[in-house]
Amino acid sequence: MADSWLPSLITETPEDGFQLAVKMSRMGVKTTQPDTEVLHRLRPEYAEDANSLTAASQVVALNFQTVATANNYWR
Amino acid sequence: MADSWLPSLITETPEDGFQLAVKMSRMGVKTTQPDTEVLHRLRPEYAEDANSLTAASQVVALNFQTVATANNYWR
Amino acid sequence: MADSWLPSLITETPEDGFQLAVKMSRMGVKTTQPDTEVLHRLRPEYAEDANSLTAASQVVALNFQTVATANNYWR
Amino acid sequence: MADSWLPSLITETPEDGFQLAVKMSRMGVKTTQPDTEVLHRLRPEYAEDANSLTAASQVVALNFQTVATANNYWR
Amino acid sequence: MADSWLPSLITETPEDGFQLAVKMSRMGVKTTQPDTEVLHRLRPEYAEDANSLTAASQVVALNFQTVATANNYWR
Amino acid sequence: MADSWLPSLITETPEDGFQLAVKMSRMGVKTTQPDTEVLHRLRPEYAEDANSLTAASQVVALNFQTVATANNYWR
Repeated sequence: MADSWLPSLITETPEDGFQLAVKMSRMGVKTTQPDTEVLHRLRPEYAEDANSLTAASQVVALNFQTVATANNYWR
Repeated sequence: MADSWLPSLITETPEDGFQLAVKMSRMGVKTTQPDTEVLHRLRPEYAEDANSLTAASQVVALNFQTVATANNYWR
Repeated sequence: MADSWLPSLITETPEDGFQLAVKMSRMGVKTTQPDTEVLHRLRPEYAEDANSLTAASQVVALNFQTVATANNYWR
Repeated sequence: MADSWLPSLITETPEDGFQLAVKMSRMGVKTTQPDTEVLHRLRPEYAEDANSLTAASQVVALNFQTVATANNYWR
Repeated sequence: MADSWLPSLITETPEDGFQLAVKMSRMGVKTTQPDTEVLHRLRPEYAEDANSLTAASQVVALNFQTVATANNYWR
Repeated sequence: MADSWLPSLITETPEDGFQLAVKMSRMGVKTTQPDTEVLHRLRPEYAEDANSLTAASQVVALNFQTVATANNYWR
């Protein structure tokens, strides 16, 4: 388990959970395009496109739903 | 925790929860494009495009689902 | 609370809940583009585009999920 | 309540629930574009576009999630 | 009920549930475009477009969420 | 059941669950386009398009919601 990028969905704080959701969203991209050189080449194009950024934020929102539920909303 | 932008998902009212969902949606954008100058440059373009606005509203809806659940729907 | 546009997620009937979901979807747009003059200018363009209308309906569906859950599905 | 288009989320069968989800998806469109003449004019264009049809099916899926939960999945 | 295309959300296995989710996704399309001749004409175009296929997979994922919950995740 | 590609939603670890979600997302594509030769032809095009990759990540996020719930979030 030591090398797992996702050993657990449990985080200490909501903010840590949000960062985990960001990480999961990026891993969702990497499973389709594992070549990091390609990913770096694509980055400028889509990091300066408003609709791409909104789409990225949407994936984070979906993954954060999962992480927040796993953590019982840190209540 | 003092500097956390997301110390808790709990809010006093539904309207505060909606504002938190808006904030989370923007942070989802900022994790991909942290350069606020770029974000300001992109703003006019997408704030005047109906489909971009609908997409933004969709991300807020997803994040509000999470916040509302965390607050037990303020029942 | 008197001036809150979202004092509660509780509604009397499913239809009222649907209307609330529509209102939430529009407020999601307004938080990004608060200038109502711009919104009015954009309206004809997107109210006559089938894909824009479907996207709007999708946001309503997401918000209605939240409202329906809050109301225990008016069972 | 007699004239409500959505008096209840409860249906007798899953298939009736699916039809209700379709109706809700259309009402989501109608709240943005209430002019049925415009809607009829738009119809051919989008009913022959594969991506528009997939988007329509997505909205139905979201609304069916709500209806199915309301009916405890007709178990 | 004999002729219902959706008599129940309950399936024996997860794989059967996935197939049901695919069927529901197609029925979501058919309610908008019931003319199967049109659907067959559209098929090649969208079955060879990567983004269309991803969108189709997304609708299946949403419907599978519903079916999996109905079946208590076949646990 | 031996040949089922989806015998169970239960996995040992969150990371295994994520891989299962990726597999489900791909099967959602395959049910629409079963011809693997076509899928291979489409791959380069969409694996180098940032928006396609985000869309793929979104489907994974949806399927992971299902898998994570099935596994009670591996708590």
